[in-house]
Amino acid sequence: MYKHQQSLRVRYAHTDRMGYCYYGNYAQFYEIGRVEALRELGFPYKSMEDSGILLPVVDFNIKYLAPAYYDDSLTINTYIKELPTARIKFDYEIFNDSKEKLNFGATTLVFINEDSGKPMKCPLELFEKLKVYI
Amino acid sequence: MYKHQQSLRVRYAHTDRMGYCYYGNYAQFYEIGRVEALRELGFPYKSMEDSGILLPVVDFNIKYLAPAYYDDSLTINTYIKELPTARIKFDYEIFNDSKEKLNFGATTLVFINEDSGKPMKCPLELFEKLKVYI
Amino acid sequence: MYKHQQSLRVRYAHTDRMGYCYYGNYAQFYEIGRVEALRELGFPYKSMEDSGILLPVVDFNIKYLAPAYYDDSLTINTYIKELPTARIKFDYEIFNDSKEKLNFGATTLVFINEDSGKPMKCPLELFEKLKVYI
Amino acid sequence: MYKHQQSLRVRYAHTDRMGYCYYGNYAQFYEIGRVEALRELGFPYKSMEDSGILLPVVDFNIKYLAPAYYDDSLTINTYIKELPTARIKFDYEIFNDSKEKLNFGATTLVFINEDSGKPMKCPLELFEKLKVYI
Repeated sequence: MYKHQQSLRVRYAHTDRMGYCYYGNYAQFYEIGRVEALRELGFPYKSMEDSGILLPVVDFNIKYLAPAYYDDSLTINTYIKELPTARIKFDYEIFNDSKEKLNFGATTLVFINEDSGKPMKCPLELFEKLKVYI
Repeated sequence: MYKHQQSLRVRYAHTDRMGYCYYGNYAQFYEIGRVEALRELGFPYKSMEDSGILLPVVDFNIKYLAPAYYDDSLTINTYIKELPTARIKFDYEIFNDSKEKLNFGATTLVFINEDSGKPMKCPLELFEKLKVYI
Repeated sequence: MYKHQQSLRVRYAHTDRMGYCYYGNYAQFYEIGRVEALRELGFPYKSMEDSGILLPVVDFNIKYLAPAYYDDSLTINTYIKELPTARIKFDYEIFNDSKEKLNFGATTLVFINEDSGKPMKCPLELFEKLKVYI
Repeated sequence: MYKHQQSLRVRYAHTDRMGYCYYGNYAQFYEIGRVEALRELGFPYKSMEDSGILLPVVDFNIKYLAPAYYDDSLTINTYIKELPTARIKFDYEIFNDSKEKLNFGATTLVFINEDSGKPMKCPLELFEKLKVYI
């Protein structure tokens, strides 16, 4: 398993009139988690796109256990637990300052060859790198 | 089953650099679907909140079949298929102009008594109203 | 002067923990105003982009007189008061249901030739169309 | 003059189909700038709200000189150049990695007593703290 940890502050823009971080913002927070996980692995998402590989999300789910509030300093744990094929799955957990788990979820992304528009296998270098951990 | 139909335009603000409607925006689109479904049923979400009932989301999942693009005129179908208990589940499908299904998903929300902060049963009037359809 | 009127509902996603529509959302609302104004004039923004003309915003200002609240049904008035050159200016006013003016502002956009990346004159057809009103 | 520097990464969620960081996102970025400036001064915005002082924005303007792109690491400079009265003005400049100035702007916020809903003077401690710099 590969694990990456990322911190993130809840901003006014994220809050809603219940005082909660709006449920729809976590898709962005999970994006930050997986992009920084890939960067730490040496595969910045931008470099992949520049080399003609797109990674659209095909599946996203999240369970909310407790709300995050304004100015909370959150920790996003991002996990890659399975070796990628033409798909790569990221699991996430978000915790607040008091180490309370606020939500958890997963996204599945597909490697797409930008030129052909068709799915393709995970780049070999990324696969080999992940093999060390999984 | 109760079904509600709502149209919605993809704005520049929604797009990302792939030219897609960013995957995180659909939480907002689904919000619009369920709020307008409740309004049509005679239970504006705002009136519920004003009467001391909160409805936080506890579960959200979505599968993406195809992207929406800038200026697409989308149709959101919102369904209530089961009678609510202390929870209410909404199912969604989003279609583009060409009647292509772009994604589908579901959210589960919990009725919370604002004063006690505790879960409560679905308001009887809403339950009775939905009984006609389900 | 050309004037266009557009209605828009404040969603939960737009609110913040003060209960206000977050101040940063009005850029999106003004976008909706000007895009629908251009559509009504017969110049959908998307068609302009498809024909190789980009319209980035170079200047945006807004004065907030009163907040919008959750579920408010807003009216966006968009005005074109001056004939466009290589730039086009839109003025905006947003009103709530009680016809209270909530904010007003303006954006200036530049016509950019996508191929050259250089500014260009307003397309003649749009200029001629606006001449009828201004 | 008081000056604060904050870094920030452009995320996929921020981009639009031109490949730019959407013009409407800078209101959030400026929020981050001023909130972190106040935190550094020892006046976390959240503590002010908790003590019954609200700070809504009454004026926002921005000039865009060049776009930010996906994954750019931006620097937000936030300045307080004038001593606050019942209002406090923040000036901002955003730079990219190549130290190119991308945009600049300002926001004016009003100190509001939450109980009365009326404007109030800047809290004395904040005023005294800023006097050292201005």
